[in-house]
Order: sequence, then C-alpha cells, then structure tokens
Amino acid sequence: MRDQIANEFMTIQDEICQGLEELDGKSSFQEDEWERPGGGGGRTRVIAHGDLLEKGGVNFSAVHGKLPPPLEKEFNAPGKSFFATGVSIVLHPNNPHVPIIHMNIRYFELDDQIWWFGGGIDLTPHYVRKEKAKEFHGFLKATCDRHDPEYYPEFSKWADDYFFIPHRNETRGVGGIFYDRLNADRGDRQDHFRFTADVGRTFLPAYASQLDLRDASFSEREKEWQLIRRGRYVEFNLVYDRGTRFGLQTSGRIESILMSLPEYASWKYAHDPAEGTSESQTLTLLKKGIDWLA
Amino acid sequence: MRDQIANEFMTIQDEICQGLEELDGKSSFQEDEWERPGGGGGRTRVIAHGDLLEKGGVNFSAVHGKLPPPLEKEFNAPGKSFFATGVSIVLHPNNPHVPIIHMNIRYFELDDQIWWFGGGIDLTPHYVRKEKAKEFHGFLKATCDRHDPEYYPEFSKWADDYFFIPHRNETRGVGGIFYDRLNADRGDRQDHFRFTADVGRTFLPAYASQLDLRDASFSEREKEWQLIRRGRYVEFNLVYDRGTRFGLQTSGRIESILMSLPEYASWKYAHDPAEGTSESQTLTLLKKGIDWLA
Repeated sequence: MRDQIANEFMTIQDEICQGLEELDGKSSFQEDEWERPGGGGGRTRVIAHGDLLEKGGVNFSAVHGKLPPPLEKEFNAPGKSFFATGVSIVLHPNNPHVPIIHMNIRYFELDDQIWWFGGGIDLTPHYVRKEKAKEFHGFLKATCDRHDPEYYPEFSKWADDYFFIPHRNETRGVGGIFYDRLNADRGDRQDHFRFTADVGRTFLPAYASQLDLRDASFSEREKEWQLIRRGRYVEFNLVYDRGTRFGLQTSGRIESILMSLPEYASWKYAHDPAEGTSESQTLTLLKKGIDWLA
Repeated sequence: MRDQIANEFMTIQDEICQGLEELDGKSSFQEDEWERPGGGGGRTRVIAHGDLLEKGGVNFSAVHGKLPPPLEKEFNAPGKSFFATGVSIVLHPNNPHVPIIHMNIRYFELDDQIWWFGGGIDLTPHYVRKEKAKEFHGFLKATCDRHDPEYYPEFSKWADDYFFIPHRNETRGVGGIFYDRLNADRGDRQDHFRFTADVGRTFLPAYASQLDLRDASFSEREKEWQLIRRGRYVEFNLVYDRGTRFGLQTSGRIESILMSLPEYASWKYAHDPAEGTSESQTLTLLKKGIDWLA
C-alpha cells in the first residue's frame, strides 16, 4: 500500500499547488527534488513574492531506511526499519488580514507491521475574527463527520492542546484539527487512508474561504503586528513543533523543514497592545478551550 | 558573598549601560524591575531605535529559592535550594557592518555549599572580517591571561563548540570565550569572582573596538543579509541555547529571556550567496577551529 499512499499524497500536492497558483494569480511554485542519503526523497515546492502569498511551501516526501536514533528511542524500536510519507504546507500571506495556514498529512510504517496515519489543518490569523474561525472549523467538522462523528471533537481538542505556546500562555492561532497514530485500533487502513486524503482535500476550500480580505488595505501598525505574530509562529516551530525539532535532530533536509519560517518576522520587547484595539482583542482569543462553532 | 557578587554584577550592568548610551549617542535604556514569584528578581534594561543599536538588552538578575524541576534533574539535586545571579547582554546594531555581540556572567550556588562561576563574550558579525575577529579575540586573551594562561585556549575552544548550529553546520559567529562550572577545583571563590568581573569589564572596550564601520553606508542587499544572519541567531537561541531553553522551561520572565531576539529577522528559502561575494566569503569563515589570533 505504500506506493498507493505516496502516489495519492503526490496527487494531493499537485492539486494544492495548482489551486494555490490560481488563487495567487501572480507567482508560481519552484520545485526542488531531493534525495535522502539513507533512502527515499522528496519534492519541495516553494512560492514567494506572489500577489496573495509572501512565502509558502508545499512539500512532499517519502523516505525509508533504518530508524534514525531519536526515533529509535521514541518508538522504543532499536534497529527497526521505517517508511514515512507526507505532505506539509505552511503559507504566509502578504496581507495581515489573511491568516497563516498549516496542513500536514502523513503515513508511517515500522518494520512493515505497525502503521499509522496522522495529520491536521490549523489556522493562525494575525487578527482573529470569530465568524471566520467558525467558518474554518465548519470545513474541518464536515470532513471529520463524513468519517467518524468522534473525530472532530477529539481532533480539534488535540489541535488546541498541541498548537500552544506555554511560555506565552497563548495558542498559536484558532486551532483546527490534529491527529496522530490513527491505526488498526480505530479502523482499517483503507478507511484511515480515505480520511487522511479527505483532510488533504479539505485544505484548499478551507483556505480559500479565508481570503475575503486579501485585497483589503492595511496600515503600518497592522503590518508590524503581522510580523510580531509571525515571531510567535517562529517561537512555536523552533521550540515546540515535534516535526521541526525531529527534522533538525535527524539531519533532514533543512531548507524543506524550515520553509515554514516567514520571510520577515519581528520581536519587540514587552509589546503590549492598548486595551480596546483589535490587536488586544486578538490576544484575548488566543486561548485554549474556545468552541469556535458555538 | 552572595551580596558582594550580586552588587558587583549590578555595578557592571550600570557601567555597561552608561557606556553603551554614550556609544549610541541617541537612545537610552528603559528599565523594568521585576520580582520572581519563587524568590528574587531582576532589572531588565532595553534600548531600541538608537543611532548605533536597533535593539539591545542588558539584564541583571539575582534569584533564589527551591530548584525548578528541570534543574533538579540536571543537577541530580532534588529538593535543594539555589541562588543565581548574572548579567546578560545581546546587542543588535542597525548597521550590517557592525557585529551582534553577546555577553553573560553568572554565579550559581546550590544549598550554600556548592558554587561556581560561568560566563563569556562572543561576537556574531554579519560580515566576518578576519582582522576585526583577531582584535576581538585579542581583548579576550588579554583578560584571560591576566588570570590563568590556560583559560583562553580552553574557553575559546568551548565557545567554538557551544556557539554552533548543527543543522546548518555553521558557527553562530567568530566565537569568543565561554566557561561554566568554574569552581573550587580550579581556584578559590575570590579569584574566580575577580576573573568573572574582569570578563564583564572587557565587554565595553571589546565591543567599542568593533564599531569602526558604524557609520558606513550599506546597500539593500547588505541589510537583507543582516536579517538572514539574524534569522540564524534566532535559530541558535530558540533551538540550542541552554540559557534560553532553560528560561522558557522554568517560566522565567519571558520578555527578559527573549530580549535576545532581534527586532527584525528574515528567512529565505535556500538562500545561497553567489561565489566570490562577501556574503559567501563570510560563510566560509563560520567554521569551527579557526585560530583567529593567527
């Protein structure tokens, strides 16, 4: 089934890149094919300086070989072989009124015996608008509910807990869904594959629905706020994100891993938006446990 | 001796802030005094939008109490009390021809019995110039040699190994000195205190010697390169720096810890300076094992 899954993931990468180029209307993806010394490789696709997107990456990889030491430890599986394939996306738009978005779908095998799927989509608006967060979660719930009514409540809670910056006591954004180790305990491989591909195909319509302010004008203050929110994104990815930290530890292809970082970010000492501003309002909404569908 | 050391560190903070304000000539430090819930506190001083400095911090802290869990584990000392005081500096200049600089001096006590000093100064030029790196290391060697001829070779090697970004296979800059756990095995407390204060007082002249190009003109390409080098600085601090990661894990005062991050930084996908450019030349010099004094 490996080939079937990897091929479908490549098709999803193709569909998303084509869809994003149409949405952007100006820039197009540049592709780097790369090989992994230990086995396998990938297709990294990056878009920059578009009309919609300042910087974005849509990466596919399918790698195999002996487990790298950090994973041997994590899985308590010394000397075992693995196969992993996935698609990863991070998009940083030009306009601060358009959110950052992230998607990942992945499939993992250990020694041809143990397997699981993982994935998710989450949204990081620079300015949180409740009605747009609701719309976004609506797409995810609809996709989840087509497969299992337990998924959305479980996986949206998981995203809430995962995309959290403890040292700031704030969520990265308005969450979404996140799941991992979806395996034989919860259904058969074809079902989980169909669900994961469905998550991949939810990305484009869910993102497109967030673009109503893409041509809105914005002030210098709003641009500065975008750079500060991107700084938080960098903090999350470099300090906490498991995929990023794992990639850095296992000498993955650094440029593919760090394509998630924005072209420009900013840190200001003790930045504290005045009460009543839209920036301050956004901070009150970067909290766990908000039911965006309410 | 705690008070003596903390008072001297505060004096060093005062001297350095005053000296930097004179060097900057335009901006001045803003101070935030803060208290640590578990005991102690600090004086965070930040300067921004100066003539020389885009953003910089000179922090003093003296904290005590029960060891936070991550340190209990690191020191294998459950339930013990600690005292820690130090001065930390990071300066990000406006001009890409002026280096980023970092200094830290610190004193640590466990249960009133075990104690040690640590510290160091290191330089991160956006454009490495060998003669300026040599000059910088000359200051550090002179300070070390006044105390122990073994210090400079040992502590400059330590800086080389510590300020290294494995996933980029590059050093953060041209190194400097770094030391830790300088304790009763290597001399008495007064001697180590004198050495550590001497390191603190080496900061200003060593930095001042690096400012000859502070008013040099620079191109947009050079400014972009500065932002990319700052991005590497962010990667080092968030992924590897022990002080930063320890601070984030132990709920230190986040704004004081992250004052080390630049106001603006940039990440470009697969940025690869053309051969023969000064950017490419700099990359060849961000390697371990260079004898800058040669």
